[in-house]
Order: sequence, then C-alpha cells, then structure tokens
Amino acid sequence: MEMDTIAAISTALGEGAIGIVRLSGEDAIAIADQMYRGKQSLEQVASHTIVYGFIEDPRTKERIEEAMVTVMRAPKTFTCEDVIEINCHGGIMSVNRVLQLALRLGARLADPGEFTKRAFLNGRIDLSQAEAVMDLIRAKTDRAMDVALHQVEGRLSKHIQALRQALLETVAHVEVNIDYPEYDAEEMTHDLLREKADYVKKEINKLLVTASQGKVLREGISTAIIGRPNVGKSSLMNSLVHDSKAIVTDIPGTTRDVIEEYVNVRGVPLRLIDTAGIRETEDIVERIGVERSRQVLKEADLILLVLNYGEELSKEDVALFEAIRNMNVIVIVNKTDIDQKIDLTEVKQLAEGRPVLTTSLLHDKGIDELEEAIASLFFEGNIDHDDMTYVSNTRHIALLEQAKGTIEDALGAIEMGVPIDLVQIDITRAWELLGEIIGDSVQESLIDQLFAQFCLGK
Amino acid sequence: MEMDTIAAISTALGEGAIGIVRLSGEDAIAIADQMYRGKQSLEQVASHTIVYGFIEDPRTKERIEEAMVTVMRAPKTFTCEDVIEINCHGGIMSVNRVLQLALRLGARLADPGEFTKRAFLNGRIDLSQAEAVMDLIRAKTDRAMDVALHQVEGRLSKHIQALRQALLETVAHVEVNIDYPEYDAEEMTHDLLREKADYVKKEINKLLVTASQGKVLREGISTAIIGRPNVGKSSLMNSLVHDSKAIVTDIPGTTRDVIEEYVNVRGVPLRLIDTAGIRETEDIVERIGVERSRQVLKEADLILLVLNYGEELSKEDVALFEAIRNMNVIVIVNKTDIDQKIDLTEVKQLAEGRPVLTTSLLHDKGIDELEEAIASLFFEGNIDHDDMTYVSNTRHIALLEQAKGTIEDALGAIEMGVPIDLVQIDITRAWELLGEIIGDSVQESLIDQLFAQFCLGK
Repeated sequence: MEMDTIAAISTALGEGAIGIVRLSGEDAIAIADQMYRGKQSLEQVASHTIVYGFIEDPRTKERIEEAMVTVMRAPKTFTCEDVIEINCHGGIMSVNRVLQLALRLGARLADPGEFTKRAFLNGRIDLSQAEAVMDLIRAKTDRAMDVALHQVEGRLSKHIQALRQALLETVAHVEVNIDYPEYDAEEMTHDLLREKADYVKKEINKLLVTASQGKVLREGISTAIIGRPNVGKSSLMNSLVHDSKAIVTDIPGTTRDVIEEYVNVRGVPLRLIDTAGIRETEDIVERIGVERSRQVLKEADLILLVLNYGEELSKEDVALFEAIRNMNVIVIVNKTDIDQKIDLTEVKQLAEGRPVLTTSLLHDKGIDELEEAIASLFFEGNIDHDDMTYVSNTRHIALLEQAKGTIEDALGAIEMGVPIDLVQIDITRAWELLGEIIGDSVQESLIDQLFAQFCLGK
Repeated sequence: MEMDTIAAISTALGEGAIGIVRLSGEDAIAIADQMYRGKQSLEQVASHTIVYGFIEDPRTKERIEEAMVTVMRAPKTFTCEDVIEINCHGGIMSVNRVLQLALRLGARLADPGEFTKRAFLNGRIDLSQAEAVMDLIRAKTDRAMDVALHQVEGRLSKHIQALRQALLETVAHVEVNIDYPEYDAEEMTHDLLREKADYVKKEINKLLVTASQGKVLREGISTAIIGRPNVGKSSLMNSLVHDSKAIVTDIPGTTRDVIEEYVNVRGVPLRLIDTAGIRETEDIVERIGVERSRQVLKEADLILLVLNYGEELSKEDVALFEAIRNMNVIVIVNKTDIDQKIDLTEVKQLAEGRPVLTTSLLHDKGIDELEEAIASLFFEGNIDHDDMTYVSNTRHIALLEQAKGTIEDALGAIEMGVPIDLVQIDITRAWELLGEIIGDSVQESLIDQLFAQFCLGK
C-alpha cells in the first residue's frame, strides 16, 4: 500500500503549554529534518528519542519556533509508519506556523482520523479498536472511559474473533463432508449444526445485553428537565451538577464550560438539554410554549418532570403528562418544605407506573433517591466493568443484531430439515457480518465515513 | 533550593488526539514509574527517550490509559529538573484521570506558570525570557510571535546585560578612584561619567522607541467600529475578517471562534470590541445609545467611525464626533456606490486632521487604503523584525522608563557639578532597575505574581 506523508495538529487548540504537530509517512523524518536545526540531523537520531532544537524556515532561514522533536521509526509507532512529533509552545499561532511549514515542505494535511485509519490499514489495530480510540477521547465518565479502553485493548475483538472461528469451523466441516466424502471426518449433522448455532446465538445475546448500557455510557442520556415556571427546575439542575462526581474535576484553570452540559450521576452521563435556557430563565415551558417543548422532548431519552408540592395540579401539568406519554420519565414533586396542595394519588395515576419522587431541593432532600432512580432506570443490577466487554457502538450493535437474525434463520432452517449445505449459507453470512465489526471485508466507503467522524490529528 | 514534584496537564483542554500530563521534580520519575506498566521500569529508561505502555492504578491494578511516556533527566530539561511527559489519548477524562493518579501518588498540582518559574529559578532562563514564553503562546500574529521568540532566545536579555555591564564598570571605576587613590587608575571625571551615562540613555531610548510597536504586537489594538445603523459596520467587519491574513489559517476543524475577535491587518492585530453585538444587530449606537457607546469607546485604542456617503450628516453623526475627540480615529465614508449627499468638507472639518477615507464595501473598494491607514497609524516606517529587539512587555517598558529617569537625574547632577561619588548613587539605581527586567534582584512576591499570569501546565 502506497501512502503519502500526512501532518496535523494533534493537541486540542487553545492556549496550552505544549502543542504537538504530528507527521506520519515515508517522508516524515526527511520533511521534519528540513525544518529542524539542532545538534544533529534527525536522520541520525535513534528511534524513540526526543531532541531539542529550533524549527526554521529553510527558505528564509528564519527561526519560527523552539521545539522538542520526537523521532519514532516504523514499524513500532501509532501508525506503523515513521512518525515525527514536534512539541512546540502551545499557542494557536505557534502550532499553525509549524504545521504550515510542514505542509509547504511536502506533507499533506491529514484528514480527520487519518492517523488512526493508517494504524488500521497497516494492520496494527482492527476496526473496533480504532473506533474505541475516538470513544476514549470523547468519554464523559470513568465507566465510559473503561469501556473504551477495554475495546482499544482488543477485548471485544477477541470475543468476535472467537465467535467467527466457531462459525468458520462449522462451515469448513460441512465443506469437508461435501467435497471429500472419502475422508473419515465426523459428519456434520443437523444436531451438531444446531448445537454450534445455538452456542453462537447465546454468545451474541450476551453481548447484546450489554449494548443498551454500553450505548448509554458512550453517548450519555439526553435529559430534559421540564415543568411549569417556578417549580424548581434550576435548583434541580444545580443539584445534579454540584452533586455529580464532577466529570471535570475542579482543577483551577480547567474550563468546565466545555462539557458542563454533562453531569455524572453514579457513572451515568446525563446530557442536559437546553441547560442554558433553564438556567437563565427558569421557565422553559412558559417561554417556548408546550408546543415547542414537545420538540425538545422528542430528542430526550429521559424526562425529569418537576411539579410543585404546594400547588394543585394545573391544566399545564396535565398537558405535560400528555406530551410525555410512553417516554422514560421520572416525576419529581418538589417543595415538600411548603404545605401540600398537590394530590399525589392523581400524580401517580398520571405517571402510569413510572417513578414518582418527592423532594425538597431547597433542603437537599430527595436527591439521593433521584440519583438512585436514574441509575436503576438505565443500569438494572450492578455493572461489572472489570470482566465485562460492553458493546457500545451503534454500528456494532446493528451488526450483532443482523448476525443474530441470520443465525436464527439458520436454526429455523435446521428445524425444517433444510439440507445442511443450504443452511451453511446463513452461517457464512453471520461470519461475514461479525467480520464487519472488526473491519474484515468492510467496504472502503464505510471506512472513510467512519474515520471522518474522528477529530483532526488523531 | 529544595523543590517538590509538580504535575499538570500541559496541553490545551478539549477533544484532541494527544493530551500531555507533565511532571517535574526529584520524584517525577519515581512517581511516574509507580503508574507505568511497560517492558521496563522508567528508572532504567535512558534520558530523552519515549516508551510505550499502560498507565495503571497501582492500588486497584486497573489500567486507566494507554500512553507514550517521555523520560527526560536533569539538567537538560525545560525546568532543569527530572521531567516526565505522559502522552495519552487527548480527551478531558483521559488527561484528568492520569493527572489525578499522579497527584495521589505524591505529586503536587503545579501552579500556573510553575514549570517556567522553575526554569527561571534554576537559572536556565532569565525573567524576560520566561515572560516571553507566555507571549509566544498568546501571540496573535506572525510578527508578535517573532518578537516573542527573539525574546525567548535571549536577545533582549543580551541588550540589557550589555547596558548593565557598562553601568557597573562606571560604578566600579568610581569606587576604585575613591577607595584606592594610590592606584594609578585613570580618574573618573565628570566628562567621562557624562559620556557613559549619555551612551546608556541613548541605548535605552532606542529600546523604548520599539516599545509602542512592541506593545501593539503583543496585546493588539482594541478597536471599536461605530456609526449609525445601516452605514455598513457589519460589512466593514466582515471585510476586515475575510481580507485579513487569517490569524488562524483555514484548516478544517480549527475553531475560528476562539480568537476570531482578532483580525490581522498587515501584521497589526486588531481586537474588535463588541464584535458579536455588531454582527447580530448592526446597530450598536441605536441599541445601546450614544451614552453607553461612550463607555465602549473608553476601552478602545482605535475607533473606526463609519458614515453614510448617501446621506447628509445627522445630529447623531456629529454627536459621535464629539464623543471621540482626541482619540485615534479613522473616518470611513462608506457607500460611494450610491449618490453623494454627504458634505465631505464638513466631515474633514469634524475629523480635525485625522484620516478620512471613502469606501464602497459593497464593491470591495477602499479596503486596501483603510488597511494602509491602520498600519501606518501604528507602524510609521517599516518594521525590521529581523534585527530589531522589541520591548513589548509593559513591565519592561516601565522599568526602562524609570532607568532612563535615573540616568537623566545623574546627567543633571553632573551638569550641576555634584561630586562623582554622589552621582554614582543614581547610576547604581539604574543598574538595579535594568536588573529587574531580567530578574536580578527581583522580589519574590513580584515573581509569584508574574508567573501566576501564565497558563496552567507551562
């Protein structure tokens, strides 16, 4: 495979102490060497060492940066190609100048995800591992990070490979029976085939059981807090934010803003919808009207409906209940610190079996119960994040479902006594589908599309 | 000097491909080694090499990241201490987890600028170089970056040291004359002293001449675009933004937002005040009233006043002229594409000698002239950014002004025939003041304050 040399800024943009411009490809060292002025040429530097020097424009001889340059020679690198990392002072101007120079000297600007794509194309990691790299970067909680890290390490891949191996052996067995009847191989019977197919189906099921939780960990639960004005929506949000095991720990200088829309409730990442709006105005319903909030509700995986303990149920409250029929809802009756006017029996009726909690956010009462309710809604039982391989990626889930479908087709065919050499078509198809998860027999266009979702410089 | 081991995230926070956690100090390698799992212990790794491995919590044995770890042993490091850089996947969770672990294992969270402060305290760089490190990160244009880089390289320091040496020799000469009259040293006469003092004063002046330009390069020119509604303020801003040699080049994925309030006009960084407001509403005057805009104007170094070529001067226009009396103003009469109704003679009268230009922003006419006018307002003559040392830091400028003042006092005293041993008190004071620029004889509290302005992890 012939690949040119790519370059990109590999650190987040902003004012940081260090910024990295990364190059990968056959000419990475030669290009970097043209712009590097240090004690020796980069060509002479040993692999996996870091050297001090200046970055200089070879045309004007002007120094444009002071830098530490790491030289990593193929194949033991992130991309399996020669890799150069230029660590410079981390300003936007600084990394841009160095990148621009690298591009002028013959590197091509990398596409998003292209470094990881090369790691995949060069066979260092498979597709599911590559996808997990991005999950790792985007992880919002410890648990999400653990799931992604396991996947990067290849735990999901090993599971999938084991299942494919089982299917492949079955298919091979059938082939041997057909093509070489003279061999004394054990004949593949309907019983034997059913046994194998059943085993694979069960294993796929086990993985799919983790899927809904895995997806929640990976993408977060988009959560809308709704309710009439003045019921305590802001207070609820503040409680969740402050009580949450901070996703970004309170290190001075870290910008909470970046991801402050996420709160971490017992390992469950909640993505609060229209956070800012609630915070500023505290009257989402009033401001945008029930009609508009219906729109917001459509995007939500979870609705926190807040009612006022000290007021009777109003027409608006009932309208809100109407709007959230058949959705994941937790009803919070707030302000138990004032006299009760609300009819809780009526509330429970309207809730139609969904959890109803009472809180006094003013006095920090009921928050624990709420967090418990949220966690148990999405994680029944404990998560065992040590031993478990989670399937978290929508693409993987879809492929597992399809593979399960074809296995079920095969099982149906076996029941009906369809000849074994026909049944094996379904088995082969399942083998292919599982292969797509790890990137075997995947179309090029799909690969391009997958990596395009990455961030630049990875 | 005894110093503990510090740690911080050294890359900008956000979704990047790589994030770096940096440790510096006596225990840096030992602490990192406790959390590193690779082929060998970090203690055994050669200096300035990078090794692959996993970051593991030694208590739970749980892997928390995949990482490349760079080991750099004292003294040839950024801080002159042992330095470890842990390059991990660049998500916020990821770098935070690694940092938290390092802190738990005995590192202390670094104060902003503390790594650079240690480079200074350990004598690798002087104070003016340390300050330039931050300028480098915050630079908004190529020129600003060049000025900072020269300063990091120590060009300003050399200038200052040469001047201090000249002053020191003079003082020493006087001392020798007084303390050892029996030596046959050439006597320090008033003439000789005047000659030396004159030389230093001239050199300080040369540096101060660069100061206003240096400060502009470093901090940008805060610029307000004002004018009645519908005169073309938005168009002007868009023209400046689009025509500018982009401060952030148009690399897909770079967030222009971060610094898009800066536009680069021929190397001059303009910081546009209330940019967003103008863009959205195009009627800053109408919206906030002349009274409020007076407030905005106070912060501005440069006012771009836009008038309508196709309308007569209104009362509001005249009020705006009143509001910007004695300020740096460029008057732009826009919309020459429509019939003239404005009286240009009257405009010129109101402008009181300040530049008046006509433009048709609709047809891209007059932008070059405007940029020329802005550049020449702040940079008369050419900037020779190769040979010149710019003084750009307000603290340095103030110290140079004070040193110049004491030299002038000394010259005055010489004229009055004050005895040489008294004159030398002023000379010694000037020597001290210059020393403060490079960090000689600077109070600890000042040093703390200076480095506190740095970003975290530098």
